Amino acid sequence: MDLMDIQNPAFLKDMTDEQLDSLAQDIRSFLIDKLSVTGGHLGPNLGVVELTLALHQIYDSPKDKFLFDVGHQAYVHKILTGRADQFDTLRQFKGLCGFPKRSESEHDAWETGHSSTSLSGAAGMTLARDLKGTDEHIIPIIGDGALTGGMAMEALNHLGHEQRDITIILNDNEMSIAPNVGAMHNMLGRMRTAGSYQKAKDDLEMLIRRVPAFGGRLADAAERVKDSLKYLLVSGMFFEELGFTYLGPVDGHDLSDLKSNINYAKKTHGPVLIHVVTKKGKGYAPAENDAKGTWHGLGPYKIESGEVVKKPGPPGYSSIFAETMKTIARSDKRMVAVTPAMPNGSGLDKFAKEFPERMFDVGIAEQHATTMSAGLALQGMKPVLAIYSTFMQRGYDQLVHDVCRQNANVVFAIDRAGLVGADGETHQGVFDISYMRHLPNMKILSPKDENEFQHLLYTAFQNEDGPTAVRYPRGAGLGVEMDDELKELPFGKWETLREGKDVSILTFGTMVPTALEACDLLKSRGIEAEVVNARSIKPLDEEKLNQLADSGTPIVTLEEHALLGGFGSAVLEYLHESGRHSAVVDRMGIPDWYIEHGSIPKLLEEIGLTAEKTAERAAAQVPKKQKRA
Amino acid sequence: MDLMDIQNPAFLKDMTDEQLDSLAQDIRSFLIDKLSVTGGHLGPNLGVVELTLALHQIYDSPKDKFLFDVGHQAYVHKILTGRADQFDTLRQFKGLCGFPKRSESEHDAWETGHSSTSLSGAAGMTLARDLKGTDEHIIPIIGDGALTGGMAMEALNHLGHEQRDITIILNDNEMSIAPNVGAMHNMLGRMRTAGSYQKAKDDLEMLIRRVPAFGGRLADAAERVKDSLKYLLVSGMFFEELGFTYLGPVDGHDLSDLKSNINYAKKTHGPVLIHVVTKKGKGYAPAENDAKGTWHGLGPYKIESGEVVKKPGPPGYSSIFAETMKTIARSDKRMVAVTPAMPNGSGLDKFAKEFPERMFDVGIAEQHATTMSAGLALQGMKPVLAIYSTFMQRGYDQLVHDVCRQNANVVFAIDRAGLVGADGETHQGVFDISYMRHLPNMKILSPKDENEFQHLLYTAFQNEDGPTAVRYPRGAGLGVEMDDELKELPFGKWETLREGKDVSILTFGTMVPTALEACDLLKSRGIEAEVVNARSIKPLDEEKLNQLADSGTPIVTLEEHALLGGFGSAVLEYLHESGRHSAVVDRMGIPDWYIEHGSIPKLLEEIGLTAEKTAERAAAQVPKKQKRA
Repeated sequence: MDLMDIQNPAFLKDMTDEQLDSLAQDIRSFLIDKLSVTGGHLGPNLGVVELTLALHQIYDSPKDKFLFDVGHQAYVHKILTGRADQFDTLRQFKGLCGFPKRSESEHDAWETGHSSTSLSGAAGMTLARDLKGTDEHIIPIIGDGALTGGMAMEALNHLGHEQRDITIILNDNEMSIAPNVGAMHNMLGRMRTAGSYQKAKDDLEMLIRRVPAFGGRLADAAERVKDSLKYLLVSGMFFEELGFTYLGPVDGHDLSDLKSNINYAKKTHGPVLIHVVTKKGKGYAPAENDAKGTWHGLGPYKIESGEVVKKPGPPGYSSIFAETMKTIARSDKRMVAVTPAMPNGSGLDKFAKEFPERMFDVGIAEQHATTMSAGLALQGMKPVLAIYSTFMQRGYDQLVHDVCRQNANVVFAIDRAGLVGADGETHQGVFDISYMRHLPNMKILSPKDENEFQHLLYTAFQNEDGPTAVRYPRGAGLGVEMDDELKELPFGKWETLREGKDVSILTFGTMVPTALEACDLLKSRGIEAEVVNARSIKPLDEEKLNQLADSGTPIVTLEEHALLGGFGSAVLEYLHESGRHSAVVDRMGIPDWYIEHGSIPKLLEEIGLTAEKTAERAAAQVPKKQKRA
Repeated sequence: MDLMDIQNPAFLKDMTDEQLDSLAQDIRSFLIDKLSVTGGHLGPNLGVVELTLALHQIYDSPKDKFLFDVGHQAYVHKILTGRADQFDTLRQFKGLCGFPKRSESEHDAWETGHSSTSLSGAAGMTLARDLKGTDEHIIPIIGDGALTGGMAMEALNHLGHEQRDITIILNDNEMSIAPNVGAMHNMLGRMRTAGSYQKAKDDLEMLIRRVPAFGGRLADAAERVKDSLKYLLVSGMFFEELGFTYLGPVDGHDLSDLKSNINYAKKTHGPVLIHVVTKKGKGYAPAENDAKGTWHGLGPYKIESGEVVKKPGPPGYSSIFAETMKTIARSDKRMVAVTPAMPNGSGLDKFAKEFPERMFDVGIAEQHATTMSAGLALQGMKPVLAIYSTFMQRGYDQLVHDVCRQNANVVFAIDRAGLVGADGETHQGVFDISYMRHLPNMKILSPKDENEFQHLLYTAFQNEDGPTAVRYPRGAGLGVEMDDELKELPFGKWETLREGKDVSILTFGTMVPTALEACDLLKSRGIEAEVVNARSIKPLDEEKLNQLADSGTPIVTLEEHALLGGFGSAVLEYLHESGRHSAVVDRMGIPDWYIEHGSIPKLLEEIGLTAEKTAERAAAQVPKKQKRA
């Protein structure tokens, strides 16, 4: 059938399993074809084709609510709810979002991006349903990786206690983004291999029935055994313990098996968990045989060969990170690296090849990663926690309470700081300065290029007085020459890149090239602009600020970060605190709304963070100085 | 023995159980006596006397590391490590801290205050030990309530995976701060009542040995049963599943039982969990028979009668909160209340008496509470999440990603905002404006007194456009008259409390009386100060700010909140954004360090947030205006 004709999932109701299987193949071909051009999360979506078909045939969306945890596996759902025609614009500016989006469709009940939130959202929805007295089904779909996030456990604990009707689909694909870590992963593995739970249960019941009675002791033991029948063997015990009816493991690519279990769950009262085993990348060999996680989410590729199309360019920040980490680790035994489930994304997989015993992947567990780093530091180690800006948000209290308050020597390598592009609003790293700057003992650095990055990482590591964060962007560096030796840069000292007396542009990180370009534009208009690389965001370079304010030079601050509470605000705070009330400061940055997906240059243009706008804003400040003079 | 003579725990090594029991009684008498004067966490400490004695006898602190989760149960540990003589100053300014504090003693290896952090800290310490090749024991002591916090589960998952030597003491007191909630609590309950694990295991082994073989089927089943022997019955299964050796349940007041289990754990390799059942308040009848949680942490009391000494005074914010919630709930069926384990502290226990089906206590699970509220809101309910400022930190990512980004109609009742006094630096609510203000869609209100509080809570509730936080202080109101009818106050409009043309003091919440007093002081010095109640922190009253800046009136902002990123910064941001660069703004607030324990007035004096200082700072701004005029 032509997927473009699909308006809503109602057409699925009367389809036979054969028809569904054929549709599944059409959907796979469609995804492999479309994503080869746009890129996107191919592996996860190929894994849930049959599952999504079965769910949409059995339940009635939008009345019934699907909550896709993380949400990058909702492409099939998007196709079945009338959005196939938008896949050419996937993850592009104003195009189809890579995650569920309520503004796109009434079938998107819950928006995601970060992991482990679906169970809590679903819990709220079941409570709302029961209070309102309606009868919709609530169906969160969560991966095995997301289940290790603490908030998913908090939700399981509460749902088990509430005993309301809800069906959780555990999509166990044996490997989430990174190879799964932790005891729970091992447990799921045992469940998968334990064979049929029902068969073992039958065996044991027969055994008990046939055993000759021998006094009270047997009756006693038998009763206890009967009581604990449901706990027997490894299968499902964990979830049964928490109050769930456990169904599975179910072959996630066998429609008949899937449907019978989902139908059973639909009729069952109280919380049910269906353990569905799927294969990431199913039906496309390069993605199925993906040991490194390349096919989890990627850019364009060649369909026939499975060759990923690589843009030539300078090395990415992640690979500079890995190299610098190795260099430091060779000379300092105290260094250890910590990552919450991002060994590939962070580059630490390369570090682990040389130092396997000094790299700890703790799974999707940002809170634990943060506090564990404090524990390492308090015992004399020097941990570097590699974490994305948007995921560090989940360790905020641990930052406040365990790291900064104990002044622990932890280095935070804050990757993906600033706009991230195609992943969109859930992943933009635009709040980290605001949520870290007010914490006592915290220091924040940000490099203008990859060469400065290696030095700042080293500088942060050498510091022995509490936590330091180094924030750096997603993607490639500028292609600058790399120094051979790491060197320590002074905290709280900025670098003047261009001299100019009319106006000073204070900036850092990704905005440095923009400021330099603005400087050129200003020059062509007869304005001499200074450009300062404000690589130390906390502490500020107070001496430099004093000098600018005292000379009456207007200041423009430029940052790829939220305006509220960001670097520009820090500049304002200092100037007023030091009594320099008349300083002219114009702050440029990200406005007070969530920035959607799109290419980074396009997004920067939309919010006015361009060289042209910077030049305009800077030029507009110049007369103010002259007026005062 | 005289507890004042204790220098360190070495003296315990040679004591017999009888001697330890006698010491336990001395310690109980000491605690009951001392805390009757100072107040403090009596119940939790009476519960862990024998446990702490056994631990200190068997392990060698400070070489071996104890990590007390939450930490309010470390009083016995403080006595045994030479701090008995400081109990007269408990929780007072510059006195003994109510939590572990590294600066107090080398025996305090890890600082706590918030729950569920000890396992992650301990994980870091075990990794550090193994990397360094040393052999100290790491012993976190965690309550059953803290175990429901997601980060504790993240840590268990990782520790089970790592299989390193660590002994977790699960201090199961059947009731943490509030009656425990959740499936995990029920599971611990089953473990406690399951009787002897060993006995059941013996029974089953005998059963299997005696059963007549009947073909391959039995052998098959029997083998499976044998394999899963350790999973049989409820006891310990959950922890065994996660990779721990489970010991218990152990009677936490039976020294011999305690010691044999701890000694066994000490010799066992890999992660061990000892399930210790204790009784909160053990040995002091009023605290033992405490159904309401009064004796968890409290002020002075009369020892004989067990009567809590109550200071007369106006009703507290929590009780105003409960009353207002009931009033709103009576007329709006959409209201539901959510609390993460603080039904008493928040006042919601009173709400639940009238609306039991509309109050959800989710346990210590701030992340889940926040996102579940978003789920409720998206399905048309109007949840009010009652949470302390310091604990909301743990839901920060959920605030960013689930609530604000989806613009969900959630009301956050942020209790204990500002300084909290005796609980000290882990509990101060001084960051919430900084961590909420930069979030798109968020609105933040703060009342000057309890009457305004009821109206602002109502105002927040009536708002149908996304999240609103109302932040209010710990403790009693001002004793003002309460209006009978709730009324809606305009968002973004401030209230001028005193007129004055020389300087304007912008303030809110607890600082309003201070500002009024400063105004009087200024008047006596011939300065006319305006006092503005800036009860809407986001959005700001831009009209008012324009008027002040345009008239050249100097501004003093005064807040019981961190200076970095706080209300004063918001004022600066707006004035500069609107081009009002020459406005004089002097910001008063909490400096960039952690504020320790002490009475709130004493702390405010220490950091200069007094009427006298405010008057001084305001007066200092006045000439600046005249100079410019």
